[in-house]
Amino acid sequence: MGYFLADAFKDMEVYTPGEQPTDRDYIKLNANESSFPPSPAILKAINETVLDSMAHYSDPNCMELRKAIGEVYHFPPSQIFVGNGADEVLTIAFQSFYREGYKISFPEITYDFYRTYAKSFKLDYEMFPLNDDLTINVDDYLREPDRDVVLANPNNPTGIAISLADIEKILRVNPKRLVIVDEAYVDYGNESCLSLVDKYENLLVVQTFSKSRNVPGARIGFGIGAKSLISDMNNVKFCMTPFNMSTVAIKAGTAIVKSTDYFHKYINTIINIREKFEDELEALGFKVIRSTTNFTFFREKNVSAETMTAELKKRGILVRHFDHPQIRGYVRVTIGTEEEMNIVLAAIKEIEEEGELFKEEAV
Amino acid sequence: MGYFLADAFKDMEVYTPGEQPTDRDYIKLNANESSFPPSPAILKAINETVLDSMAHYSDPNCMELRKAIGEVYHFPPSQIFVGNGADEVLTIAFQSFYREGYKISFPEITYDFYRTYAKSFKLDYEMFPLNDDLTINVDDYLREPDRDVVLANPNNPTGIAISLADIEKILRVNPKRLVIVDEAYVDYGNESCLSLVDKYENLLVVQTFSKSRNVPGARIGFGIGAKSLISDMNNVKFCMTPFNMSTVAIKAGTAIVKSTDYFHKYINTIINIREKFEDELEALGFKVIRSTTNFTFFREKNVSAETMTAELKKRGILVRHFDHPQIRGYVRVTIGTEEEMNIVLAAIKEIEEEGELFKEEAV
Repeated sequence: MGYFLADAFKDMEVYTPGEQPTDRDYIKLNANESSFPPSPAILKAINETVLDSMAHYSDPNCMELRKAIGEVYHFPPSQIFVGNGADEVLTIAFQSFYREGYKISFPEITYDFYRTYAKSFKLDYEMFPLNDDLTINVDDYLREPDRDVVLANPNNPTGIAISLADIEKILRVNPKRLVIVDEAYVDYGNESCLSLVDKYENLLVVQTFSKSRNVPGARIGFGIGAKSLISDMNNVKFCMTPFNMSTVAIKAGTAIVKSTDYFHKYINTIINIREKFEDELEALGFKVIRSTTNFTFFREKNVSAETMTAELKKRGILVRHFDHPQIRGYVRVTIGTEEEMNIVLAAIKEIEEEGELFKEEAV
Repeated sequence: MGYFLADAFKDMEVYTPGEQPTDRDYIKLNANESSFPPSPAILKAINETVLDSMAHYSDPNCMELRKAIGEVYHFPPSQIFVGNGADEVLTIAFQSFYREGYKISFPEITYDFYRTYAKSFKLDYEMFPLNDDLTINVDDYLREPDRDVVLANPNNPTGIAISLADIEKILRVNPKRLVIVDEAYVDYGNESCLSLVDKYENLLVVQTFSKSRNVPGARIGFGIGAKSLISDMNNVKFCMTPFNMSTVAIKAGTAIVKSTDYFHKYINTIINIREKFEDELEALGFKVIRSTTNFTFFREKNVSAETMTAELKKRGILVRHFDHPQIRGYVRVTIGTEEEMNIVLAAIKEIEEEGELFKEEAV
């Protein structure tokens, strides 16, 4: 680390995004991206006029996009914050509401970005362990009502959600603590807690266009909450990156959120492919956590998750496994096209059958 | 301010971008944007393939864009940081190198964003006054060698630059204090201090695609400095917004920076229009600060800067004046097309001729 880095960063931990090897073509199922194209509405939205308009600054209030999101989710723009992906929305929220030493909590196994941020900015963070069945233990979050909460719901990489009733308990135990619910994967079969926003002023719901809307490369995310939360976040944004979103992001995002049919079509497609894939994994004897996301989390049988990941990679398929002892045996596979999942399944079968071989090699 | 906003923000001051009224069409010369279109290379760069590729995450290292900038400016990517506009580059630098109470300095009259950030994040900032002729008093920055420095060079809104020799003095007086030079306007006739980067490890040079490259709406900026500075900024970025730039921004930016002929053509065009405009203002008897930027800063004669701005607005022309006593008499006009500047000049003449009338009204 260089001489000039602020002392507070001395033990920062840098977030490591999923690997993106470029040595060959891969079936890329390691980052919960989409194997399906974005809405063709983008093509129409990003036209010559939009490109010419880039000679002027983008709208710092991103009003067109906030209005479009508001129409779909039934909130006024004053309750909507937009940013370059859910990460920027979360970061602006964290910057707005936390400083060194502020108390927050989140699960020990979850989206790693929360810990990376909390550690790097020296928040006082507590990570509550998951139950043995990998569900979130809601009681932990009730027992320390002064600690703010960040929850991915459904959780990642387990794919398991908690109920709205449980989220309400967490919100209600202390209306003066902020609860951020990251719903990156909510559209694949879970109930959003957006319905709670107007009931609880301490709730911020964060969603993204990177999963169910197929455009992680467009970097668009949003947060919805009480007017006062959103207004504070907007003010903090104006102190940091006033023109955070480009004209293209605003125009493309507006077109994407309005592509409602396209959105539902691909959610249903992915749910169907996922269910078939999970049925087939179970038929092969794997323990599968039935997911309500765009990925599947299943447990090793004959070969370790590490071997499975490495062997799949040799066969041109990227998936992920994790280092935490509680989930060390699990593999996370993003749901791609039906064709891709058939290739993955055949590869898994083959690797399992050769399983004994790997065990011998390991000796 | 809401209940949850971090206490440290209680006296934050929100940055106010230049006004963007939409009640009618304006000749918009108030935000130093471009009246010329961006390079047509953007059209080719943002094609169907790029839009389809948005189904995957953008490259968090933005390597293609960093390499392209590196080829033009002769630095390796390891010395280049890219972000959503110079504002994000500055913000990541400030986040990396400063915490509450850190000592920095900048001119009293300069790009207002530095003060907004410093005030909002409670840095210990000192604003040194300009000399009577609106130049920067270099001695101030030598007298307090422990204070980091942020300089817009050329300065905004005065359009006046300091020499590389002066910047070297500021760098040399204490190699352990960081000097950030914001060269947003450097391409219109000034020498960049990029030539000093490999000599001084305490120098960070920030540039933008929003001025001389005609694309403020694309949100692209970059910083160049010693490897250790850039590596720290990249690490901090990975803790905040790992995938900060969209695939479109990376592809468009790469195409833009490679459009060297286009770039030089419009710089020369703007310099020629500016010189003619300034000659004509002088011929009308105005005191003009001969600029090396894409704007002109001139002093009122018969009517106040406030009246001039308001009267131009009535005539469909947006320009800016500022509230600080030392420059209260000045008007800043962005250089647009030759046709636009002729309209502005005619309007200024007309307003001046009616000048006595406004004085009477004011009584």
